[in-house]
Amino acid sequence: MSDNKKKPQKLKARLPRGFVDREAADIRAVNEMTAKIREVYERYGFDPVETPLFEYTDALGKFLPDSDRPNEGVFSLQDDDEQWMSLRYDLTAPLARHVAENFNDIQLPYRTYRAGYVFRNEKPGPGRFRQFMQFDADSVGAPGVQADAEMCMMMADTLEALGIKRGDYVIRVNNRKVLDGVLEAIGLGGDDKAGQRLTVLRAIDKLDKFGPEGVRLLLGEGRKDESGDFTKGAGLNSDDITLLIGFLHSTVSIQSREIGFADGAESVGTKLMPHALFPYDGNRLVANERFSEGIAELSTIRTIVHASDYGPDRIKIDPSVVRGLEYYTGPVYEAELTFDVTNEKGEKVVFGSVGGGGRYDGLVSRFMGQPVPATGFSIGVSRLMTALKNLGKLGQDEVLAPVLVTVMDGDAEAMGRYQRFTQALRNEGIRAEMYQGNWKKFGNQLKYADRRNCPIAIIQGGDERANGEVQIKDLIEGKRLSGEITDNTEWREARVAQIVVPEAELVARVKEILSHQAEDRARGK
Amino acid sequence: MSDNKKKPQKLKARLPRGFVDREAADIRAVNEMTAKIREVYERYGFDPVETPLFEYTDALGKFLPDSDRPNEGVFSLQDDDEQWMSLRYDLTAPLARHVAENFNDIQLPYRTYRAGYVFRNEKPGPGRFRQFMQFDADSVGAPGVQADAEMCMMMADTLEALGIKRGDYVIRVNNRKVLDGVLEAIGLGGDDKAGQRLTVLRAIDKLDKFGPEGVRLLLGEGRKDESGDFTKGAGLNSDDITLLIGFLHSTVSIQSREIGFADGAESVGTKLMPHALFPYDGNRLVANERFSEGIAELSTIRTIVHASDYGPDRIKIDPSVVRGLEYYTGPVYEAELTFDVTNEKGEKVVFGSVGGGGRYDGLVSRFMGQPVPATGFSIGVSRLMTALKNLGKLGQDEVLAPVLVTVMDGDAEAMGRYQRFTQALRNEGIRAEMYQGNWKKFGNQLKYADRRNCPIAIIQGGDERANGEVQIKDLIEGKRLSGEITDNTEWREARVAQIVVPEAELVARVKEILSHQAEDRARGK
Repeated sequence: MSDNKKKPQKLKARLPRGFVDREAADIRAVNEMTAKIREVYERYGFDPVETPLFEYTDALGKFLPDSDRPNEGVFSLQDDDEQWMSLRYDLTAPLARHVAENFNDIQLPYRTYRAGYVFRNEKPGPGRFRQFMQFDADSVGAPGVQADAEMCMMMADTLEALGIKRGDYVIRVNNRKVLDGVLEAIGLGGDDKAGQRLTVLRAIDKLDKFGPEGVRLLLGEGRKDESGDFTKGAGLNSDDITLLIGFLHSTVSIQSREIGFADGAESVGTKLMPHALFPYDGNRLVANERFSEGIAELSTIRTIVHASDYGPDRIKIDPSVVRGLEYYTGPVYEAELTFDVTNEKGEKVVFGSVGGGGRYDGLVSRFMGQPVPATGFSIGVSRLMTALKNLGKLGQDEVLAPVLVTVMDGDAEAMGRYQRFTQALRNEGIRAEMYQGNWKKFGNQLKYADRRNCPIAIIQGGDERANGEVQIKDLIEGKRLSGEITDNTEWREARVAQIVVPEAELVARVKEILSHQAEDRARGK
Repeated sequence: MSDNKKKPQKLKARLPRGFVDREAADIRAVNEMTAKIREVYERYGFDPVETPLFEYTDALGKFLPDSDRPNEGVFSLQDDDEQWMSLRYDLTAPLARHVAENFNDIQLPYRTYRAGYVFRNEKPGPGRFRQFMQFDADSVGAPGVQADAEMCMMMADTLEALGIKRGDYVIRVNNRKVLDGVLEAIGLGGDDKAGQRLTVLRAIDKLDKFGPEGVRLLLGEGRKDESGDFTKGAGLNSDDITLLIGFLHSTVSIQSREIGFADGAESVGTKLMPHALFPYDGNRLVANERFSEGIAELSTIRTIVHASDYGPDRIKIDPSVVRGLEYYTGPVYEAELTFDVTNEKGEKVVFGSVGGGGRYDGLVSRFMGQPVPATGFSIGVSRLMTALKNLGKLGQDEVLAPVLVTVMDGDAEAMGRYQRFTQALRNEGIRAEMYQGNWKKFGNQLKYADRRNCPIAIIQGGDERANGEVQIKDLIEGKRLSGEITDNTEWREARVAQIVVPEAELVARVKEILSHQAEDRARGK
């Protein structure tokens, strides 16, 4: 205190890059959302299970597309026994570890769900966060694509439970085997081409983001982004690139996504006919086993979801779906919101993906001597919340600010009395607080009540105290009388904005005023 | 596949030391608990705010008592721009950063709450976890101890809202200034003694854990734990140690904690009299300014809480409360459950602390040019959950397992039909699932239903399908008829355990059976 020079350099309060604080409205909205999602998952027979945020790095594996980032996109540190631990980058890899570790105690098929934060060591940027919440559901020990079909239906039901109407979303389904078959047909089969295949898949996955021209670059030499950073491409020759882009375009209008190939092939019968879908090179693909297997699985999925009346308006086969993670082995699916929003550049764009997943038959068996097939999906909670806010489907039930009990005198007994008023209100379920700032500036207390939007202020000065009375200010009515706010209910009789009542009547009168205010709000809606 | 020698060493599925998975019952219990806690905090006028799990290491500070652990007990890593980031070890230090960073936008006094995981780089051991959940509430910009008094009342109300009855808990309150005054009186005043003072406080904080003898060692040379690890002591001489231990014992029976010093001094009048409390050296302490200030603040807290009828059966002044964190500057408080539980050694022990907090006037101002006084507390969610389970206050509403739709045939159309039954049940709000394992072993499906405790199984074989019928098995009644379960309601007429109904009646008949089962459960309670 005595010597300013001795003062240490003042610390700067700032969040690490790529992280954000969450405010009350968002937290309440997420709670509302996750409760509704949970209800759907429970109805589908899923039970919660959660894993911690850390896993051993080897157990987690590195399946992210960010191979150029530190630790391949994962946050890692070394424990004091030298073992490397990482923060989970999704909720699927830790579930695989959980199932393998507890294999003898778990009853398969195992249906579970979980919500939680995941971390990506990504390049920070606007709208790209390094911590975000996912909400996952998985069926482990489920070998057939009927489990994938169910996942798609559950995603559709979840979106509808959140208030997104039919027609405003679509679940797009594809199969990695179909893509693998196409890649094999252009000479990218075999174990030694696994890396190149992955780069190709990830390029295709960027179709939404970069458009066909961007994907063409990523399939070839590579692509430079706005900041000048260069992403190395898959190194395909220009013929193969044309063929691949053609594959996507021959079957689906990427811009509008109005035609899924399931629907385009409808006229051929109940079975999907590859040569009807891919006329440019149908025969070569028909002979491709992996491709045919993938198509047959998609056909089964279609039959199952149609039997429960989930038509292509809700669940649609679409060959451009890839999903960026490396561990998928069969069907992949994605939930897309199809309505337009205005982006930061003022352009109208389709809202896009809010989640997805797929089959990962190899993830649990990494730890086991036996195959453990599984399928599941993730919802991106923050992104879906943004969508729901856009649609006005969240935060309808606003939380009322508390009644403010003001402080006119700072001795212990006076404060005891103010606190007693506050507790009496709370005991009746009324949200209330005693002013906890510096009470000496009374004006600040009313300013605080105003900014916080308190509905009522309670005041007791010396005179009132002597009479055993208390003043109740209706702050909403006060604003209306002073012309600060106007509403649709002008015709109703104005009330008094301020009354003085005996202490014993405090709670009853506050209740009365709050109920008048609630009526006004209901009328004003 | 072809060459076994090429197979990589199988990965071992195991959690990092000190971390645990959470099962369905615990997750549901925590959700139930946190909803109730939130309700109390909202009623007190608090709003939610959340910070991310990472903070810059310097912004977080290192205030943990684990000075001998790597990074002083904090998990840290270096970002790709060389800056050090740490996982939060509590929810208070990040809140301080949040307030400082958004100071111009925040309306003070600022009442907020938040639940979230925190991380401690502790030595792993049984029952000691490195990730755990805290639920915090804080008032920032609240200079007076009336805010601390309110926190104590809120803790009491929270415990009662969770079903802990009055008498089974107590909120113990002390003041760091009182302790500081005592330390000053034994010659430990001054900035240069800050480190030693902290060691002394932390030693006193271990009273519950190690008893007076352990504390005596920690105040002196040091203490060796069961594993042989040595904790260096505060290095006090034996006279000072005797004085300190005497201070604690002169005013409170540590073992029973039946006498708080507020209550012992009651006869002296409304003000607490130090010399009445500390007869062994009262005069020296009376002359100690810091000590007197602390006592006066405790007296004010007592007056305020008593005015709202929170007597010493709920909120009690107790000089042995310290709290281990370094940043506390004034009142400190702790919620203790006073009922006995049996520990792992078979001994009856008081359950103990489930949370606490205190005033931290310096934490926000680390970033600011001005003082920003604040107070708040944390609830240890897992520990409190254990306590509530002990009391039978959680998990009363058991979640019913789903109705199982079995699979008798694996072609796409048959599976579409089974899925349709399942969806029809779900659409009526009935928890249901289609069997997703290998359907070919039908016995496994019924075993699964049994282990999962499914109430009903739906079966449709070829004959039933041809007739447009479906079989409904009441699995609970089946177990009763086979004598596998017995209950208190033997007198009621047995029902049939199995019926065959037209497909169209499926949902209605399942509802009927579920409602009979619910009646039986209600009767059996």
